[in-house]
Amino acid sequence: MKRLQRWRSHGGWQEVWAHESAETGTPMEFSVFLPEAEGPRPVVWYLSGLTCNWSNVTEKGEFRAACARHGLIFVAPDTSPRGEGVPDDAERAYDFGLGAGFYVDATVAPFAKHYRMRSYIERELPELVAQHFPVDLTRQGIMGHSMGGHGALTIALRNPERFRAVSAFAPICAPSQCPWGQKALGGYLGNDPAAWAEYDACQLIESGARVPEILVDQGGADGFLDNQLMPDALRAACDKAGIDLTLNLHEGYDHSYYFISSFMDAQLNWQAKRLT
Amino acid sequence: MKRLQRWRSHGGWQEVWAHESAETGTPMEFSVFLPEAEGPRPVVWYLSGLTCNWSNVTEKGEFRAACARHGLIFVAPDTSPRGEGVPDDAERAYDFGLGAGFYVDATVAPFAKHYRMRSYIERELPELVAQHFPVDLTRQGIMGHSMGGHGALTIALRNPERFRAVSAFAPICAPSQCPWGQKALGGYLGNDPAAWAEYDACQLIESGARVPEILVDQGGADGFLDNQLMPDALRAACDKAGIDLTLNLHEGYDHSYYFISSFMDAQLNWQAKRLT
Repeated sequence: MKRLQRWRSHGGWQEVWAHESAETGTPMEFSVFLPEAEGPRPVVWYLSGLTCNWSNVTEKGEFRAACARHGLIFVAPDTSPRGEGVPDDAERAYDFGLGAGFYVDATVAPFAKHYRMRSYIERELPELVAQHFPVDLTRQGIMGHSMGGHGALTIALRNPERFRAVSAFAPICAPSQCPWGQKALGGYLGNDPAAWAEYDACQLIESGARVPEILVDQGGADGFLDNQLMPDALRAACDKAGIDLTLNLHEGYDHSYYFISSFMDAQLNWQAKRLT
Repeated sequence: MKRLQRWRSHGGWQEVWAHESAETGTPMEFSVFLPEAEGPRPVVWYLSGLTCNWSNVTEKGEFRAACARHGLIFVAPDTSPRGEGVPDDAERAYDFGLGAGFYVDATVAPFAKHYRMRSYIERELPELVAQHFPVDLTRQGIMGHSMGGHGALTIALRNPERFRAVSAFAPICAPSQCPWGQKALGGYLGNDPAAWAEYDACQLIESGARVPEILVDQGGADGFLDNQLMPDALRAACDKAGIDLTLNLHEGYDHSYYFISSFMDAQLNWQAKRLT
């Protein structure tokens, strides 16, 4: 573990770290905000969307004021392995390969070797973070944006005992049914959709996975709303399963950090109520 | 005037506009945040630092929550003319030429033709903004960062009747005495320091310019503090002149937007008290 950068911000420290990942077989970077607060702190994992790395939310997310107020540690990992030897999309498209790991453990060559973002986020990174920072692993929350919202929902649904709170901005709710998800899950897991089920929030819920409640903020002018994100499918799955879904539709907001930053404070207040 | 971009954010609209400037003889871009609020609104001008354009503060400044709360319009111009035919630093250094207009009207060839950022910010842009947006020109505040802090201080000191509030993050307080300022003022105005006086906050104050009060936030771990920014010189000038300077030194903070965003909310609260 090597600290690459460190800034005093909002009364705490915004840091960027690098380490060699055993899961991905590559160097990985993540950012962590450490509030000025005593004792082990609750931790919120923020999973980013397509094309992003730690810097997008760290620069534009407007999360530090709320994390400082509530004493939350905020961790933002990368979205894929990167570096020499890591295969990318054949046409270098933005929605597969580098910057688009989709939080899966790939099973298909040549991606299976490095694209192990599920195990990285679910197991390796939490252990590493727990070794180096004063986190209270009994108080974890997870959130994410778009592809990262998909990641947050599916990771929480598969590990409900680990998270006290799960929320998302404009998540990909049903990747098995949308073009982004079909391309990614097909590319990483092969063409049999049965293998995709554990990476699809709606299918996980239909198969019995449960969390008590979910908060989703969604922009009403998001160009990906109907075609890629499909919050109605999550609404239907949660209603059928008795999961308390709060789905806030914000008229006029798009898919950008101008949207995310507008509701970050409220979403972190919601997380903090369940973590502190 | 042409709107280039528009995002719903924090209950208002974050927009980016372009226009042909008569002063600079180039296309110019600026960003403007329009809160959802009735009637003519107070306006805060934010002047950026070296290397920046409208995007830095617009993406990283964390100003929209406070502007929405107080109903403030927030305008962020560029820091220099740009485009074909605009001369740059001979060695393309970051501290002169493109991105480094220093808010002066240059008098020296080849810069005098396009580098007219003083007249652009003091006269042309306010007229344009007043034509297109519901601003109340009787309630203006000005603020800025580093080179833009220098701009905010000197513009307010030369036009005290126009601004009800002036504040800065890590401003260049005495450009005649620091390397950045000496290079820029020498390059744009020639080597006679007498021509620099109206672009030096400390010299303006010594020559009798007055504003009732100034707020400055300064990072204590800012690498430019002693060599370039010189808040002690502003302290001395204000004390001698009876100007009420609040100079907050924040231990551990540097010169970046991680610092600026930490104190933006408080600085806008201070501006709003004087504007609303």
